[in-house]
Amino acid sequence: MPNLEFFRLQTRIEVLSLYPRFSSVGAEEVELAAAPGRVLAQDLPAPETVPAFPRASMDGYAVRAGDTFGASPGLPQYLEITGEVLMGDVPERALGSGEAHRIATGGMLPPGADAVVMVEYTNEMPDKTMEVRRPVAPGENVLHPGEDVKAGEVLFPAGRSLRPQDIGLLAALGVTRLRVHRRPRVVVFSSGDEILPIQDKPPPGKVRDANAYLVAAQVAAGGGVPLLADIIPDNFQALRTALSDALAEADLILISGGSSVGTRDLTLAAIQDLPGADILVHGVAIRPGKPTILADIGGKPLMGLPGHPASAAIVMQVLGLPLLARLAGLADLTPPRGGRVMAQLSRNLAGASGREDYVRVRLREDGDTLWADPVLGPSGLLSPLVASHGLVMIPLDLEGLNQGEMLTVRLFT
Amino acid sequence: MPNLEFFRLQTRIEVLSLYPRFSSVGAEEVELAAAPGRVLAQDLPAPETVPAFPRASMDGYAVRAGDTFGASPGLPQYLEITGEVLMGDVPERALGSGEAHRIATGGMLPPGADAVVMVEYTNEMPDKTMEVRRPVAPGENVLHPGEDVKAGEVLFPAGRSLRPQDIGLLAALGVTRLRVHRRPRVVVFSSGDEILPIQDKPPPGKVRDANAYLVAAQVAAGGGVPLLADIIPDNFQALRTALSDALAEADLILISGGSSVGTRDLTLAAIQDLPGADILVHGVAIRPGKPTILADIGGKPLMGLPGHPASAAIVMQVLGLPLLARLAGLADLTPPRGGRVMAQLSRNLAGASGREDYVRVRLREDGDTLWADPVLGPSGLLSPLVASHGLVMIPLDLEGLNQGEMLTVRLFT
Repeated sequence: MPNLEFFRLQTRIEVLSLYPRFSSVGAEEVELAAAPGRVLAQDLPAPETVPAFPRASMDGYAVRAGDTFGASPGLPQYLEITGEVLMGDVPERALGSGEAHRIATGGMLPPGADAVVMVEYTNEMPDKTMEVRRPVAPGENVLHPGEDVKAGEVLFPAGRSLRPQDIGLLAALGVTRLRVHRRPRVVVFSSGDEILPIQDKPPPGKVRDANAYLVAAQVAAGGGVPLLADIIPDNFQALRTALSDALAEADLILISGGSSVGTRDLTLAAIQDLPGADILVHGVAIRPGKPTILADIGGKPLMGLPGHPASAAIVMQVLGLPLLARLAGLADLTPPRGGRVMAQLSRNLAGASGREDYVRVRLREDGDTLWADPVLGPSGLLSPLVASHGLVMIPLDLEGLNQGEMLTVRLFT
Repeated sequence: MPNLEFFRLQTRIEVLSLYPRFSSVGAEEVELAAAPGRVLAQDLPAPETVPAFPRASMDGYAVRAGDTFGASPGLPQYLEITGEVLMGDVPERALGSGEAHRIATGGMLPPGADAVVMVEYTNEMPDKTMEVRRPVAPGENVLHPGEDVKAGEVLFPAGRSLRPQDIGLLAALGVTRLRVHRRPRVVVFSSGDEILPIQDKPPPGKVRDANAYLVAAQVAAGGGVPLLADIIPDNFQALRTALSDALAEADLILISGGSSVGTRDLTLAAIQDLPGADILVHGVAIRPGKPTILADIGGKPLMGLPGHPASAAIVMQVLGLPLLARLAGLADLTPPRGGRVMAQLSRNLAGASGREDYVRVRLREDGDTLWADPVLGPSGLLSPLVASHGLVMIPLDLEGLNQGEMLTVRLFT
């Protein structure tokens, strides 16, 4: 068995700094309707200019701005109504001096017009003339060509996860198909002789496979495709075969379990026996999560997660999902803005210098204050995690956090 | 055509208060692996107690706590090592007085033991005895039966959207299948003669169907199944037929377009001609979004969205997604915690009394301050929406918001 004594605990930042060695997964083409939430594989330039023609941004009258100069409620200007542009119409004729065309929001400005007078500042007379009680400047109430988008400009850079409004803009531009990264395929293993399939009734001393289901759900929420694999027994050859087989189809392998030292050593030995394997991390300065493993197996990442479900969930949140984001091609590996809120800590929390402590918190609104209430309990229990909204972190260099401090809460995916 | 003059603008709160008249969609049974993000259709009681037996929460030695009383580094107590419990083992024998069994985290406590001494406070001798340098209290470092979950207690109430950790807990309890609400089927229409399919090249005066793709993506993000329907021309019979057909398969109909008064009137007339139709809302005190329609058609909701894509997106965010949440069976109709952040407004914003104004903002971090920068621009444009992270709301009763105010930003889904 290899000597792994030389490994020292690595910090979160050190672990994250290793991720650029792993390549993002390849690209595929999808229909626009299937693209929400997908990650662009290349910069996307605008194929056209929007709007392509000047359009009214208000209901009213298309005019020559100069014809309205000097108009006031006491001294209106009078224009002749010589046309009408409905939404979707192409104006039939140009607008001459002293003329106005009725126009609806979104309607195309007739040639000759350079502004729109809002209907509120006008009065239509029975004799096809109208009065204007307020002047408009050239360009007023008009959307100009290219004001929304200019052809050729990069609409979205590679690595962007597409939101609904992005999809709307792409539809407006006639982008019907686009190249996005595949969703990373993630094989999720649990290992250990004490782990049973969830449909079994465990005898004393055995537990059901909570980890694989929990981790698979996190993978799906993070944009990956989880592939739930069979539970691996504590046996070198079984581990080696399972990992080797998984490498054929996985972009990432997650293996949890090995909470006993024996299982952990077996797992490490099986990893090291794979061709091209390089163990990069063996132990992290994070609590819970110390026994985390990261390996590079011929360019594919494998992460070993702690055996306790609650610890595995926290390591996934802190280290696993950013790795998945890297593979998925996301430009920003940290969770999106919505993944964090600021809240006030409701009690003191003790940590330990030299490691990051992650504490589960429940958010509680009290008037204008958002409180983060720590949810304590052994890391082996799932119910405190279920009762929590997110995590607060006690940094490496602090002995703890004080009641009343304003903190960032990392919300669970 | 019906006289709709009597309709007055309704507030957001008034509109939301109408939602309880619509029933949530029915239930279906799914496998646990398919349940993340699904909404429970009924209270879920715990089928078992977890842990079912006392377990070590630390690596160390199972002991009788009384045997350690008085132990100190200067005056350790000595115990005889008479057994070992590996994770997953059932202890072979009970523990007697003056004895200790080696035990791994998660291991089952042998009968007779009532506490675990952490390995750090012990020393193992070559003669199968060990010294204990610190006393433990009864129950220390032990997970007690039922400490995580007690059989029969409601684990999750009906209406809860299942998160990854919830799935983990259900796996631990052997819940392999569960009853969740179907995902609501949402037929998404665009209407208007000026709207073309996205693969077409629009001549002047026409635009591509951005709305349906945008709204469908919002529906999918909100947990619904969007069904993109064909564009409906401005024609009473075509509208009536399309709506009537959609009612057969939809739990909710969303129709956008009708930015021109003519289209809007046609749509209203077609809705009113359907059996059991009741127009509940015709105009809301929200900007953008005034022309919004809500109808009850024999118990099924129909929402008419504004024609401008950016306005449609905002009405969906403010009124459409809460309606979808109601149909999906979610207990909480407001977006989850992650959907909001607090930020400081970077400039004054003018509103208008008597309506809620929704202003797009971009979030910007500057040291410890999170700024909300308003992204202005006509509501007809999509690019400002694409550049934004969320919305701030100017309440009904305020004329505006002041620079420097701390505000809630509703993040886009």
